Amino acid sequence: MTTLSEVANHAGVTPATVSNVLRNRGRVSNETRQRVLDAIDALGYRPNLNARALAEGRGPTLALMVSSIANPFYPEFALAAERAARAHGSFMLLCNTNDDTATAHAYLNQLAGSLSQGVLVMNGNLDFDVLRQSRCPVVLCMWEKPHESPGIPCIAVDFYLAGQLAAQHLLALGHQAIGIVVGNGKGGIHTSRLRGFTDAMAAAGVEFAPELIETVPDTVQGGYDGGQTLLQRHPQLTAIFATNDLPAIGVMHAATDLGLRIPADLSVMGITDIQMAQESRPALSTVAVPTQEAAELAVSLLRTLVGQEPRAAHGPHQMLVTSEPVLVPRASTAAPRAASTRSD
Amino acid sequence: MTTLSEVANHAGVTPATVSNVLRNRGRVSNETRQRVLDAIDALGYRPNLNARALAEGRGPTLALMVSSIANPFYPEFALAAERAARAHGSFMLLCNTNDDTATAHAYLNQLAGSLSQGVLVMNGNLDFDVLRQSRCPVVLCMWEKPHESPGIPCIAVDFYLAGQLAAQHLLALGHQAIGIVVGNGKGGIHTSRLRGFTDAMAAAGVEFAPELIETVPDTVQGGYDGGQTLLQRHPQLTAIFATNDLPAIGVMHAATDLGLRIPADLSVMGITDIQMAQESRPALSTVAVPTQEAAELAVSLLRTLVGQEPRAAHGPHQMLVTSEPVLVPRASTAAPRAASTRSD
Repeated sequence: MTTLSEVANHAGVTPATVSNVLRNRGRVSNETRQRVLDAIDALGYRPNLNARALAEGRGPTLALMVSSIANPFYPEFALAAERAARAHGSFMLLCNTNDDTATAHAYLNQLAGSLSQGVLVMNGNLDFDVLRQSRCPVVLCMWEKPHESPGIPCIAVDFYLAGQLAAQHLLALGHQAIGIVVGNGKGGIHTSRLRGFTDAMAAAGVEFAPELIETVPDTVQGGYDGGQTLLQRHPQLTAIFATNDLPAIGVMHAATDLGLRIPADLSVMGITDIQMAQESRPALSTVAVPTQEAAELAVSLLRTLVGQEPRAAHGPHQMLVTSEPVLVPRASTAAPRAASTRSD
Repeated sequence: MTTLSEVANHAGVTPATVSNVLRNRGRVSNETRQRVLDAIDALGYRPNLNARALAEGRGPTLALMVSSIANPFYPEFALAAERAARAHGSFMLLCNTNDDTATAHAYLNQLAGSLSQGVLVMNGNLDFDVLRQSRCPVVLCMWEKPHESPGIPCIAVDFYLAGQLAAQHLLALGHQAIGIVVGNGKGGIHTSRLRGFTDAMAAAGVEFAPELIETVPDTVQGGYDGGQTLLQRHPQLTAIFATNDLPAIGVMHAATDLGLRIPADLSVMGITDIQMAQESRPALSTVAVPTQEAAELAVSLLRTLVGQEPRAAHGPHQMLVTSEPVLVPRASTAAPRAASTRSD
């Protein structure tokens, strides 16, 4: 996408001058104006509407509240939501609550109606009553249970199915000795994924022992610790499923540090398909959730609610469900080797 | 740190009730109040002052403007800045400009004095005149040239020294055939790092050919592409230095995909010490910059400026320089092997 700076470079003027031409403001000579317009044509520049709106003092802002900006999923969602908001001329402010409920509630009370017209909430661990009482529309994003309404407008993703798909992939490769690392995203947010996985195992007639489940913080380090525990206690495991990509990457590191090769000695898979999943070595097999679609639906629903009467916005609760998660097999999963050929 | 939710769990009440007790609001029975106060004592909970301030409608907000939330350095800086702001009772809103100058300028115009009292700016590619004309105090963060003022209040880090330290580390290990991947952070932001590196090489009497420098986008993919180009064109290289950790990680992936072992066949190092540097395999050798200290200085300077008369805030420009970058040797660098023993 061409930026305003590139137009400025091309025309040999400052970005401020391009901005003045776009807004019919400031003193710009006809000659300069023509140069800027030529550069706009030459580069196919489309002015950023929301930047103009905001500069002209009519910019509505939306807010996105996340529990932990340190988890790279949230910046990815934020980028997609921001893009969607901009396409509609809105700015998106990002509020990181650092997993602190009081901070989230305070943000919500303050943001409602003053700093922003509506709030996208990604914190699954908030008191939903507080969300319901917010003075401005709220949309809960990435709700994990499409068949169970949280009682507030939300965007749901079928994470139960994501868990099933992960299990079916490992089962189809021939794995039966599978450990599970469950990311503790507060508020039991990964329960659906775990249930989908274990239900699919049961459906295939594979027994599953509870001691093969490790619950850990939803981070690379959490996955590292959980993976190390599982692999030391249960050396017979041929695969580990983590309910999220971040801990799955940690499991890969733990396996590597224990001298196991992936996928020859151990298959590892996650859920989400964050950028790091593609960028890790080996690249991580995962079940991709439609992050961008979820962000677009969320912004669209929030904008609808912002445009409605206050009562309607708090009335019957809309849940939009994204398209289904999709298996993305990569280099971290393969058929298990016979135990006897294991390289140790 | 104990959170309000943990106090609520311990007392067997909702977070809202704890909040009411802390604020002397709502209906709370004496018995419940006592339970909450006991839980606060038992857990050593310290109420989040800024959450209270914001809930009480007296919360000042600061803003942090970043060019790309997708670059994991920014979330790390944001977390540190947020923590520093909270310690002083301020909220921190995050504005991602997606590298678009017009958006940044518009944010700045809108934020100044309305949404926020002051703005931390991390975009090195903005028109400094626009920053100077902002209606509220602005502090430029992570300025790379401590010996050259940008003409606005700023926090500087000696990135020239960081480049020198990187070169000295590789030289001390015995490397002479070194390639460089320069992250293009717009506005020539990595020039100091490059100059520090090549000056240290020159000081050691090692010649350096310009074709051994690849300039790439400041991302993992950019580093991957740059690394691949260098390694294919110059198979004699025993080390590659990237001016930032993200492209350095990309270089490691490129080397791995070309069948090279790190550090046996190729040493790789970066600058910054983002979390991914510790978490990559092998762990990345790097030169750590004091991110947290920079964030704390930035918030502190911004708060001082917010408290001053408008004219003073735009008067003589303060530059605070952080403590020096520090070499962090990890598993990705080692002495070069003799060319004849290379495993291909």
